[in-house]
Amino acid sequence: VTEKLFTPGPVEIPARVLRALAQRPPHHRSETFRNLFADVSKRLDRLFGTSGRVVVLAASGTGGMEAAVASFVGRDEPTIAAVAGKFGDRWTKILAAYGHRPRVVRAELGAAVDPPSWAAALDAEPAGVAFLTHSETSTGTLFDLRALAQAARARGALVVADVVTSLAVHPLRQDDDAVDVAVAGSQKGLMLPPGLALVGLGPRALERLERGGRTSPAFYLDLKRAADRAADADTPFTPAVSLILALHESMSMIEEIGVEEVWRRHARFAEAIRSGAQSSGFTLFSKSPANSVTALVPPSGVEAGAVVKHLRSRHGMVLAGGQDELKGKIVRVGHMGLAYEPQDAVAVCGALEDAAMTLGATVVAGRAGETARKTLESAA
Amino acid sequence: VTEKLFTPGPVEIPARVLRALAQRPPHHRSETFRNLFADVSKRLDRLFGTSGRVVVLAASGTGGMEAAVASFVGRDEPTIAAVAGKFGDRWTKILAAYGHRPRVVRAELGAAVDPPSWAAALDAEPAGVAFLTHSETSTGTLFDLRALAQAARARGALVVADVVTSLAVHPLRQDDDAVDVAVAGSQKGLMLPPGLALVGLGPRALERLERGGRTSPAFYLDLKRAADRAADADTPFTPAVSLILALHESMSMIEEIGVEEVWRRHARFAEAIRSGAQSSGFTLFSKSPANSVTALVPPSGVEAGAVVKHLRSRHGMVLAGGQDELKGKIVRVGHMGLAYEPQDAVAVCGALEDAAMTLGATVVAGRAGETARKTLESAA
Repeated sequence: VTEKLFTPGPVEIPARVLRALAQRPPHHRSETFRNLFADVSKRLDRLFGTSGRVVVLAASGTGGMEAAVASFVGRDEPTIAAVAGKFGDRWTKILAAYGHRPRVVRAELGAAVDPPSWAAALDAEPAGVAFLTHSETSTGTLFDLRALAQAARARGALVVADVVTSLAVHPLRQDDDAVDVAVAGSQKGLMLPPGLALVGLGPRALERLERGGRTSPAFYLDLKRAADRAADADTPFTPAVSLILALHESMSMIEEIGVEEVWRRHARFAEAIRSGAQSSGFTLFSKSPANSVTALVPPSGVEAGAVVKHLRSRHGMVLAGGQDELKGKIVRVGHMGLAYEPQDAVAVCGALEDAAMTLGATVVAGRAGETARKTLESAA
Repeated sequence: VTEKLFTPGPVEIPARVLRALAQRPPHHRSETFRNLFADVSKRLDRLFGTSGRVVVLAASGTGGMEAAVASFVGRDEPTIAAVAGKFGDRWTKILAAYGHRPRVVRAELGAAVDPPSWAAALDAEPAGVAFLTHSETSTGTLFDLRALAQAARARGALVVADVVTSLAVHPLRQDDDAVDVAVAGSQKGLMLPPGLALVGLGPRALERLERGGRTSPAFYLDLKRAADRAADADTPFTPAVSLILALHESMSMIEEIGVEEVWRRHARFAEAIRSGAQSSGFTLFSKSPANSVTALVPPSGVEAGAVVKHLRSRHGMVLAGGQDELKGKIVRVGHMGLAYEPQDAVAVCGALEDAAMTLGATVVAGRAGETARKTLESAA
């Protein structure tokens, strides 16, 4: 059975991208590769909406997050983080590994940190660097990135945001959104296998790197070094050439459709999943649901783990459960990238309904898929 | 024109490996992937010849080198490095980025650090961690890894070696060679695109990680974290799944031929290149030539850069020049991996001869290729 991934990343990879991955890669110092990389870099600048520069590291998204911490936080510089889940917590863990003790503005799981509390915390005590998460993958929650970023920047902080599951999913433009450093990974909206971290550096971030003053050791993850070479569309260390060939292809897919339409497409798909799943007794875990990942609480009496198992064994659909304290409590449906068709939303909702029924919940047969279909039609 | 890479890495990738790369990758938390990764891990343990554990990072080889520095060197712990080229220097640069000041035992470019000088330096002042390079890619020079490692271990140091261009090229068995930490990359003898760092951790290295005591900040590059998860054939962060599928395939290729035969194959190919090139007026730059990369000084009056250009434009063969102070002085022919046939050695030598002739050197036409062919025949 061929399984289809509806996971919160890695996501299903389009055939075009897989074909690009299988090319004999050119040498990374050849003109062919330099031209391709220069082109990818220009497209990434547009996608991130930055007048600065996007650097590409051979690393997972976490490597990109650590690069931001190592490259931007000075010794004893006060830091602050907005946290409401595993990936917000990852900022605090990386900061702790570097000897920093960030203040944490926390919201409960499934909620987003609200801008007034965040601004109040920044007013109470200023921070040099503020850490945000745009889409919290562990709970399927969207933060109001622009409001939080503007509040932090207005109070003098450099703004660093995890946009791993929001880039090419939710509207994002670093310049307009007051985000100085945006960290993304390859295996989400960019539809690649894992292995690349992308770090968008806005003008304030570049200026700060230029000024220096960072005191943490960094070499491979040193963004100053990477930014200097990126100015010539180059990398300080051997780049992951094949993944960059694939990135060139996935950027083409996004640009052919147009990034605004890519955002709308994700919004429609997510709305279909939400409406369909709710019509068969699932409830939304998040109070501010993201369009990247939908976190669902199963109907009462139905175990989340059993739903995940059922969809996999009976329907060939790979979903994810909850992590850490959400283990066994939620089901997460990932829907990032362009390998999904509207029909997939209908199919996933039908399968969720089938799982609920099979596992003992009372549902009206056929309603989930129909609701999803109607939602898609009314959005079209 | 399709060009063939004879570069010191990335190397030419076999078609089988490219096909593996283009598979729809399984989710990294699926049983399919876990089983595959467990199998790859076991094979890597054999390839490194370690009774410890090999960890796989999504990073370039330099990321693996930094992981070793960040994870093993304690604050104010004395370090020492054997340096005779760019990659030996990389150890000292990474150490410096982490605030360490390694003592350097240096040999001139093209030579290897000799074990007696190394032992004398260690006798003069002990070191907690010793850094070595097995095959120095910038000069095509092989170090006597075992002698250097044994000398360092006998004097109490933890031994860390860059085996980036020696793994699956030169005989190497961590346990027998007294190497506690061996760092490799994917785009050399393993015939993959760049993007994976592999770190072989011997029993003494694992014990040291267990004991703790390291003081540098590290998160993504923390080998303790990676080793703990590797014990269950898992990774702390999303692995570069596609590259690991390709690694599974390249490990199969190596095991089908047998690693000893892979070593011999590299030795024969390199010997053919050396004899053929020398017979048309090139001289060997290295006093201790490695079988991974051959560094050649062109006949007098012939510019190295012009040779590289000639081979590329007239013969479709991509070679490398020298780096840094060796720029313009040498030509480097890379011959790692299994995508090269004996006939390629003859062809490269013929092309080098053609370049020398075209660029004004006096050579006997046809001798280079014939010499290479005879060398291959006598070795067969």
